[in-house]
Amino acid sequence: MPQTVDALVTTAAGRPFERSTIQRRDPGPHDVVIDIHYAGICHSDIHTAREEWGTASFPLTPGHEIAGVVAAVGDAVTTHAVGDRVGVGCFVDSCRECENCKAGEEQYCLRGEVGTYNSKGYDGEQTQGGYSRSIVVDEDYVLRIPEGVGLDVAAPLLCAGITLYSPLHHWGAGPGKRVAIVGMGGLGHMGVKIASALGAEVTVLSQTLSKEEDGRRLGADHFYATSDKDTFKKLRGHFDLIVNTVSANLPLDRYLSMLRLDGAMVNVGLPEEPDSFRAFSLAGMRRTLAGSKIGGIRETQEMLDFCAEHGLGAEIETITVDEVNEAWERVIASDVRYRFVIDIASFDT
Amino acid sequence: MPQTVDALVTTAAGRPFERSTIQRRDPGPHDVVIDIHYAGICHSDIHTAREEWGTASFPLTPGHEIAGVVAAVGDAVTTHAVGDRVGVGCFVDSCRECENCKAGEEQYCLRGEVGTYNSKGYDGEQTQGGYSRSIVVDEDYVLRIPEGVGLDVAAPLLCAGITLYSPLHHWGAGPGKRVAIVGMGGLGHMGVKIASALGAEVTVLSQTLSKEEDGRRLGADHFYATSDKDTFKKLRGHFDLIVNTVSANLPLDRYLSMLRLDGAMVNVGLPEEPDSFRAFSLAGMRRTLAGSKIGGIRETQEMLDFCAEHGLGAEIETITVDEVNEAWERVIASDVRYRFVIDIASFDT
Repeated sequence: MPQTVDALVTTAAGRPFERSTIQRRDPGPHDVVIDIHYAGICHSDIHTAREEWGTASFPLTPGHEIAGVVAAVGDAVTTHAVGDRVGVGCFVDSCRECENCKAGEEQYCLRGEVGTYNSKGYDGEQTQGGYSRSIVVDEDYVLRIPEGVGLDVAAPLLCAGITLYSPLHHWGAGPGKRVAIVGMGGLGHMGVKIASALGAEVTVLSQTLSKEEDGRRLGADHFYATSDKDTFKKLRGHFDLIVNTVSANLPLDRYLSMLRLDGAMVNVGLPEEPDSFRAFSLAGMRRTLAGSKIGGIRETQEMLDFCAEHGLGAEIETITVDEVNEAWERVIASDVRYRFVIDIASFDT
Repeated sequence: MPQTVDALVTTAAGRPFERSTIQRRDPGPHDVVIDIHYAGICHSDIHTAREEWGTASFPLTPGHEIAGVVAAVGDAVTTHAVGDRVGVGCFVDSCRECENCKAGEEQYCLRGEVGTYNSKGYDGEQTQGGYSRSIVVDEDYVLRIPEGVGLDVAAPLLCAGITLYSPLHHWGAGPGKRVAIVGMGGLGHMGVKIASALGAEVTVLSQTLSKEEDGRRLGADHFYATSDKDTFKKLRGHFDLIVNTVSANLPLDRYLSMLRLDGAMVNVGLPEEPDSFRAFSLAGMRRTLAGSKIGGIRETQEMLDFCAEHGLGAEIETITVDEVNEAWERVIASDVRYRFVIDIASFDT
């Protein structure tokens, strides 16, 4: 029998959340039932629920930065056990048969991976996210959260963490490499921590110097304001890799000019309007412009293990379920250092 | 004493060529004097001389696809001897000290490589190109043209050949890779030949099917018209590498959609106006958009040796020095299959 669980629900685009309930499926033999302890707030929750990225399905419970503890497992489950600390990220299923799934890159599933919320499962049922008491997920899409990382600071790793870890790792951030992180918000602050732990020389490119102290504390070696035009002159031909976390349209030619020969600029922010650039900005130094989307299950586990090994978690502000509406407004105003995490236990109050 | 040599000279933007003379420097100890036999006509000769890429220096003799025979060498020259078959490409000097020169990527010299024409040498003298009887070039910037490749079909390899070889090689075109060449002109037809010789599965994407027979003869496995919208649907997620030789602005999102996971689209054509794309076209499949510019000296020699080994040269139409003005008009009208080469001996007639 499906279970009724507490959840924050919004019933139409722009409508505030209210405490309500959703149904979770009866766990099958390969399913894991997770008691959610913490759920991070990602800007894409807002884009989705406000239909800025297209039509959404209501009633809707967002949340794809989920950390909790296993409450029950199906008969056939072998990889997780009751009491395990686990996480769920941006997707809860994929076709497992296409070349990308087989390569462990389920985030690029050719059939289309099943999103953790606002998505239709292969069973035809609407998925609902982590702003809720519990979730039921196939064991293959459940991550282990290692000891030594608190569940609260681990939750944002499941989206913000992997969104930065994957391109940093894929494009070879490490010792001897000069890496820039553009933007120091929820995504960018994780980029600074991870790139620094990977051994790269890390520079933050932020609109102003207001977060410089934080940036250096999190591991940045350098911090420049992009509102200062001299920044682009000073750093001409400087970086091996620029990871751009900003979802506004940037003057790409100026950013590309900061890359050395064979350097790459990777966008993980997704502006709604098209970006433009001059062909010579790439050809002049064989530069590349790329994009990247979260990471696969294997890589997400690798990222969690890496974060545990290096003592990394997100910088968070913990809120109750009744503070989510206000928190969303603060996310839009960039007024959070650096990620809101909902304490799901506050459903009890 | 500088030598006076026959040359085609244009005296202002848009003015036709006239037979005239230019001065070549007295060869220094490291210089090679080359009797030019053939000079290819590259579209960038036209862009430069018509000041479409900025102000040019007149009087001007273009030409950077040069093939000939060594007539004399300076005392210290060790790599070339009188009688050797040699070539000169797009640049005749570079700083030799920056990290890119040291890496053998002189085409990305940080001081700025010295162009074969319309450039100022480090000695302060204006450079003049290959539409002339002879040229004097430092031995380190002179290539060997292997036996088995005619000097006439070798000339266009020095720009068109290396412009395609370098990105195909750099981005791993070879057995098991699906490679598309966009545009089948002077650059594109060399792309088809080289990609095919490298063992890749080659597809031509041309506006119409008018060159299909040629394309298949040169090595293409498939040929599609980009004027047919079905082409983009059929080839969705298909290619590992797309090399774009077209210098008009293309609808990049549609082209990017034809790349599979981790696929790259490399532009070697340089549109004057900015290009635009949607960030999701890259992030959706971790695609990259890149640019590439000719190749270094070491790689250009490697390309010439590769072409000799595989019996590759350009498809050419040979013309006299008096037919160059008309030939330029035909290049602009895309009325050449696939490269004009000036027979420099026609200065005698």
